[in-house]
Amino acid sequence: MNAPYAVGIDLGGTFIKAGVVDAANKIVHRQSIETLADRGVDDTIDRLGRLVTSLLAATRLSNDHVAGVGIGAPGPMSHAAGMILSAPNLPGWTNVPLRKRLNAVTGLRTTLENDANAAAFGELTAGAGQAVRDLVFFTLGTGVGGGVIIDGRLHRGRFDNAGEFGHIIVQPDGRPCPCGQSGCLERYASALAVGQRATEAIRSGENSSLKTLLDQGKVIDAPDVDQAAVAGDPLARRIWNETCRFLAIACVGLQHVLNPERIVLGGGLIGSRARLLEPVRRHFRELTWNAADDVPEITLATLGNDAGIIGTAALARAEFAP
Amino acid sequence: MNAPYAVGIDLGGTFIKAGVVDAANKIVHRQSIETLADRGVDDTIDRLGRLVTSLLAATRLSNDHVAGVGIGAPGPMSHAAGMILSAPNLPGWTNVPLRKRLNAVTGLRTTLENDANAAAFGELTAGAGQAVRDLVFFTLGTGVGGGVIIDGRLHRGRFDNAGEFGHIIVQPDGRPCPCGQSGCLERYASALAVGQRATEAIRSGENSSLKTLLDQGKVIDAPDVDQAAVAGDPLARRIWNETCRFLAIACVGLQHVLNPERIVLGGGLIGSRARLLEPVRRHFRELTWNAADDVPEITLATLGNDAGIIGTAALARAEFAP
Repeated sequence: MNAPYAVGIDLGGTFIKAGVVDAANKIVHRQSIETLADRGVDDTIDRLGRLVTSLLAATRLSNDHVAGVGIGAPGPMSHAAGMILSAPNLPGWTNVPLRKRLNAVTGLRTTLENDANAAAFGELTAGAGQAVRDLVFFTLGTGVGGGVIIDGRLHRGRFDNAGEFGHIIVQPDGRPCPCGQSGCLERYASALAVGQRATEAIRSGENSSLKTLLDQGKVIDAPDVDQAAVAGDPLARRIWNETCRFLAIACVGLQHVLNPERIVLGGGLIGSRARLLEPVRRHFRELTWNAADDVPEITLATLGNDAGIIGTAALARAEFAP
Repeated sequence: MNAPYAVGIDLGGTFIKAGVVDAANKIVHRQSIETLADRGVDDTIDRLGRLVTSLLAATRLSNDHVAGVGIGAPGPMSHAAGMILSAPNLPGWTNVPLRKRLNAVTGLRTTLENDANAAAFGELTAGAGQAVRDLVFFTLGTGVGGGVIIDGRLHRGRFDNAGEFGHIIVQPDGRPCPCGQSGCLERYASALAVGQRATEAIRSGENSSLKTLLDQGKVIDAPDVDQAAVAGDPLARRIWNETCRFLAIACVGLQHVLNPERIVLGGGLIGSRARLLEPVRRHFRELTWNAADDVPEITLATLGNDAGIIGTAALARAEFAP
């Protein structure tokens, strides 16, 4: 059976984005619906089934044309069991056998993957990681996640939790993290943490142009800090620079642990483009060793928000139509 | 052809240790010679060839009984090219095509591997990593090295430099390392660094029972610090505890990056046994997250100095007689 298409689904806390992806890893059709997780698991799975039906109807495809469905979800989850264990942004979704449930409503073979892993595989397949066999991928958004690709395959680890780069300790006894650790990369380099660190500095009396925003009751986020840094605000420049340096410290660790060919930075923070990439590269060059000529290339992701759909579809194809 | 034996060679700066290893990963015969690297590459390779001949003569084996030769050497080296690039403890050995040269003198298929990688593979095959598919291995000796096993195979990385755990940055802007970085794990957790940190503290005026050794002109090493800590010396206890904590910080990073099933500690420092293992485990439990139940087991290596011979022989068998 020739099944050149796959369906990719990105299950987020607010929206479910899905697409039909062809054999060239192009999204040929896409639809999205609200998640409405508070209506309960059954309701969302029912609507997920109808979403897949609708995607195939719109593209005039039958199940025979589709290798399978890939669905990406936030952790903690088990790829092996196809189970969402407890997703902080899907309230009430505890131990949900999503793979099996979705397979039952669609009749299509289904694979469940951590969303950051799926995005990493998407970048490998059709984005910044093409032609590379060993890469690591960072997603720098509200939180910090990641994915590890080894010899062209996703590395999930013993407990399906590999690539949780946000919880590498980059500062011993550093900022406390809700995960229970201290000094996690996520507490310095997530979009949320960048804004929080600026806010704390201002509240503790430091001067900054960002104070105006705070006084207006606005929550400072990473783009605010980036823009203030561009405008020359000293506090914003320092926070932004520290952010890039902590990212570089984590990259040096990954260089020595995995020795990847490429490190790909993705997620909302890369909206700052070269203002993020260049300082990360500069700090990396300053921080890394000179004992061997083995530095990875650091680049920006290229698929943007499509990485999830393309990645989950590619994972389904790799698993069901290799 | 039935070739149940393999030869493993551990090429060190002072001694070359070699053994014939059977299909059950037992060393059935062993010999060692001095390296005498200062006599030049040709001389050492000549003697390596005679060492292999001697090993086979002693065990009454012909080349037909041997799957191949594995030789482990300190980095930087290239497994892919079979080349020693520049080994700090083999003066004058620059860009030596050791695999090809050794093959020429023995007539046996040969593979060259980083010594810490080889030890990791040895522990996987016949030591503390048996029955495990995903593990990381630390060698805590004069320096700190390591190896990464993924799905039962050695992960070498794009530049054959994966597993250089000694150069994970565990303390930003920390102790300077000859590698060019600052705050490398090796500067805290190698046998050398443990002694150095105690020495520096005493020289800066701290009180310690170890001062007597210093006054006698002795170089303080890790076992001295361990013993003084056992005897209750406060400085030694602090240094030893910090050592274990930095190791645990690196282990937390590896947990989140690779999500291994097991972390194996090897090298001279594990002569301290439970006095090393228990505090590393305790710090790890205190430092790691509670977001998921995915902590690796931390254990001591079991092969000791034989890990190199067993590991290189097993690598040769895996490569030439899979």
